[in-house]
Amino acid sequence: MAGSPVGDSRFILPSPLARELAETYQTPLYVIDERHFRERIRRTRSAAGSVWPGAEISFAAKANSTLAVLSIAVQEGCLIDAASEGELRAALLAGAEPSRCHLHGNNKTSAEIEYAMEVGVGSIVVDNFDELNRIFTLAQSHRCPDLLLRLAPGVDPITHEKISTGQADTKFGFNIVNGAAGRAVRVATGLSLPLVGFHCHVGSQLMDAEAQKSGAEVLARFVVDMWRDQGFVAKALNVGGGLGIRYTDADDPVSIEDYYREVSGAVAGAIREYGFELKLIHEPGRSLVGESGVTLYRIGTVKTVPVTEDLNRTYVCVDGGLADNPRPALYGAKYTVLHIPDRTKQMGEAKEQAVPGMARGEFDTTYTISGRHCETDTLFRDILLPDDVEEGDLVQVLCTGAYNASMASNYNRYPRPAAVLIREDGSHELVQRRETWEEMFAREILPGGRDE
Amino acid sequence: MAGSPVGDSRFILPSPLARELAETYQTPLYVIDERHFRERIRRTRSAAGSVWPGAEISFAAKANSTLAVLSIAVQEGCLIDAASEGELRAALLAGAEPSRCHLHGNNKTSAEIEYAMEVGVGSIVVDNFDELNRIFTLAQSHRCPDLLLRLAPGVDPITHEKISTGQADTKFGFNIVNGAAGRAVRVATGLSLPLVGFHCHVGSQLMDAEAQKSGAEVLARFVVDMWRDQGFVAKALNVGGGLGIRYTDADDPVSIEDYYREVSGAVAGAIREYGFELKLIHEPGRSLVGESGVTLYRIGTVKTVPVTEDLNRTYVCVDGGLADNPRPALYGAKYTVLHIPDRTKQMGEAKEQAVPGMARGEFDTTYTISGRHCETDTLFRDILLPDDVEEGDLVQVLCTGAYNASMASNYNRYPRPAAVLIREDGSHELVQRRETWEEMFAREILPGGRDE
Repeated sequence: MAGSPVGDSRFILPSPLARELAETYQTPLYVIDERHFRERIRRTRSAAGSVWPGAEISFAAKANSTLAVLSIAVQEGCLIDAASEGELRAALLAGAEPSRCHLHGNNKTSAEIEYAMEVGVGSIVVDNFDELNRIFTLAQSHRCPDLLLRLAPGVDPITHEKISTGQADTKFGFNIVNGAAGRAVRVATGLSLPLVGFHCHVGSQLMDAEAQKSGAEVLARFVVDMWRDQGFVAKALNVGGGLGIRYTDADDPVSIEDYYREVSGAVAGAIREYGFELKLIHEPGRSLVGESGVTLYRIGTVKTVPVTEDLNRTYVCVDGGLADNPRPALYGAKYTVLHIPDRTKQMGEAKEQAVPGMARGEFDTTYTISGRHCETDTLFRDILLPDDVEEGDLVQVLCTGAYNASMASNYNRYPRPAAVLIREDGSHELVQRRETWEEMFAREILPGGRDE
Repeated sequence: MAGSPVGDSRFILPSPLARELAETYQTPLYVIDERHFRERIRRTRSAAGSVWPGAEISFAAKANSTLAVLSIAVQEGCLIDAASEGELRAALLAGAEPSRCHLHGNNKTSAEIEYAMEVGVGSIVVDNFDELNRIFTLAQSHRCPDLLLRLAPGVDPITHEKISTGQADTKFGFNIVNGAAGRAVRVATGLSLPLVGFHCHVGSQLMDAEAQKSGAEVLARFVVDMWRDQGFVAKALNVGGGLGIRYTDADDPVSIEDYYREVSGAVAGAIREYGFELKLIHEPGRSLVGESGVTLYRIGTVKTVPVTEDLNRTYVCVDGGLADNPRPALYGAKYTVLHIPDRTKQMGEAKEQAVPGMARGEFDTTYTISGRHCETDTLFRDILLPDDVEEGDLVQVLCTGAYNASMASNYNRYPRPAAVLIREDGSHELVQRRETWEEMFAREILPGGRDE
């Protein structure tokens, strides 16, 4: 398992550097490779631009809103998709031009919309009538940015239920099927709001372009319908994101080039005969940064327990878990885990065991990797590691660049991990400090007013 | 649904107070009722003590380690069960005597154990041989606290897989079945470590005492076996927690009194003829604080969408979600949600709608309550709310006192909510501040060294 198979597109941390980082920054540690991330963005921008001139790539900040990550996305020419005021603030702190950001969300408050208008956000993706109402009210006293309507295209992607958002039965967007979308266009133009186009997002971690193509096609046909029915001329179409990554060898996503060709082709095909001049926007997150990141853990305990009379299981416990990577518990997500051999063992030095443990061999064995949190907290099942894996060894988990740092919690009062960036020149730099105990307890006030 | 059914043991926030709190502290807001929490602890201590003189109740800090909550548990005479160094720090900041705390964890580091020894923790619950090794090493230079061995009793509770921990196939503890537990006693006494007894925890949110009884019985029989086999005289038995609460009417947990009578009875029955003088410790978390807390949300958008040709679904979107209550996404957890009528509507004032919406009626309708996060983020299904529920209305979610604040994240860069304590005199007090934007970005460092 060690080493990158030929053609593996994922970032894998070389063992000597992994040991150096673990020593310098401690574990658990999020690691992002700058070169890998920049190359993914460039390849994506090139793929999208070559099949649709001027196509924009908007980085979905929710995947990873570490400021360093956002700043790289900005430098590489991405728009920033912010799903909240907080993500918008992150984008601005990372150096994004407000006009290159857009605000998303299925339940934006008036305060959030006002903030976005005040900083001069490029566009707002409007989710619903209540929000259209809020925007209309605020537009009386603020410059209103371009508006796109989020539409529910009624497309059911094949992915995990919790990240499937394109079907008609969704909290997101104006429904095309029940006429809400058409009414929304009428209301927005009737109120003279600066409506410029439409948005959809059908789901995440998709292995092929089929659902995305269907969604894009429905959206493009809606552009035609609105021109026919209401004389509305759309200028922009944001077809969302969704391209999956290779968490394990069982995931075999279509290539970036094929994906963008197919999705762009679906839009082009639907509007070909009408001559619309549409700006096409794509909104990937996971497929840009997911494979660029790994997490380093140090192994604590290795423990063999009986499952049945004939079957044992060996648990390898690491110094992280549910709090730094909730995806296995949330979605049943699977990951690839690689062992980082201990230098001392390679050098032939034996470690003494003060307490009798299990036998150490030379062959690969299948392990269950558990977290340190006070519940089952099974992270990864059926992971092949060397027979002699032991306390103090390091492992790296591939493809943790997306939805790890951004979803991390303090469960069991563990400080959130640090994040380090491997620079293009091979040096490394801390970009997110490990949380301190002071920060952990800064918000607490004991009854009677004693601050902690 | 509004109002507390006769015999409902759960804390329900009266509507006028709910409106006042939402106005004062904003939403989402965690609310803990001090009187309710104290009464639950007193009832539990009394139930446990009346069937086993001197029985101790240890509050499982992982359920809610807000310092105010811990300080109340301490004042009410609870021991504190800390699953990490961070939870132990929280307990000490909340005023717990170190000697009244014990340290848990399936993967404690040497640094964590050393910290616990240095502050003078009352006991450590040892999970595995590697840890016994670490403790032995540290005990050469530190006073070693009392040790209990965590045992895997091989009991399969009927609960959610992710919170089931008593079966033989678990990362937790020394296995009784495969002889590891017996060997651990031999090793600990052989090393002259201050072993005083055993611990087990079979699972969480259990509706009856059956699994817990089995676990306690296995533990008690192990006490007898170790006395017979090795002459080891146990002085303490920690039988864990696990009693469930009434998240919805479908949950019908056994009464506190019956639960403690049955579990204590199981231990007593197994050791009756041997005359051990055992201190019995119980370790509840959820059943002490879960029903004492509610979360207040404000409704943003109400949206009806087609599911099939004949069926619509109405989504009610609130200003919180996955980040402040991950339990629905993690465990499929269900909750009771109550509507808090808007004062203006009660006073007969109609709110104007600038944009056409859905019809408002007078009858109860079934809703799906969604969060604001940028994924499906369905919180609660099949929730009965009035027909005329609308933007600006409040809802309270019952039984969020456990595993909400302690598991909260910043997903989508939303600040974590504030927590307020309703004092026994009816006043209210902020006990956990809402996170600030400065705190949100304090750990970020832009590449090249620019701090944010």
